[in-house]
Amino acid sequence: MLTGHYTDVEAVAPGMPDAQATIRWLITREKGARHFAMRVIEIAGKGDRIPLHAHDYEHEVFVLEGTGRALTETGSRDLVPGDYVFVEPGEKHGFENTGTALFRFICVIPNPA
Amino acid sequence: MLTGHYTDVEAVAPGMPDAQATIRWLITREKGARHFAMRVIEIAGKGDRIPLHAHDYEHEVFVLEGTGRALTETGSRDLVPGDYVFVEPGEKHGFENTGTALFRFICVIPNPA
Repeated sequence: MLTGHYTDVEAVAPGMPDAQATIRWLITREKGARHFAMRVIEIAGKGDRIPLHAHDYEHEVFVLEGTGRALTETGSRDLVPGDYVFVEPGEKHGFENTGTALFRFICVIPNPA
Repeated sequence: MLTGHYTDVEAVAPGMPDAQATIRWLITREKGARHFAMRVIEIAGKGDRIPLHAHDYEHEVFVLEGTGRALTETGSRDLVPGDYVFVEPGEKHGFENTGTALFRFICVIPNPA
């Protein structure tokens, strides 16, 4: 069993250079997780965003703190703590902080093949 | 994209008859998630627990609310909001509410084969 607090995991830059966010890789293949990885993503300031993009794997998201919205090609969905989001593989999506406090959410992805 | 609030998903009895807990299946294969499922598990009262057990799949857990502990064969780990837990496939584990408020956590598992 591996346990820890998310703040003990370093917040690093995400792979997308134009994303105004940081990411903490809590549970990963390197830590023994063979199927999927749990990360915490933080978007700090009002209007900051992870722009619309797509990839061939899904997201399973749970909002922890703050207010924001999930962006799609056809509009957006407002998000508050306790909301979950499922993003299909290949679906264009993004996230934006719409409040003045930190917008924080869990995002689980399958491990790369 | 699928979105919703976790309280809109019914809290049902878990598969283990001796578990003093309820489970909300937020994101599942039936909702389009092909690799893994996101659930919210709630243990209501002080001392209530999911007893020690094991299965052949892993857990990725994130504590949302309340205080509790993760049980193992060799002891326990205290848990507070923001803590994460990785349980290896086959590892004996359980969870207990140690506070007077609801103990709530996310638990992600791979879909059954």
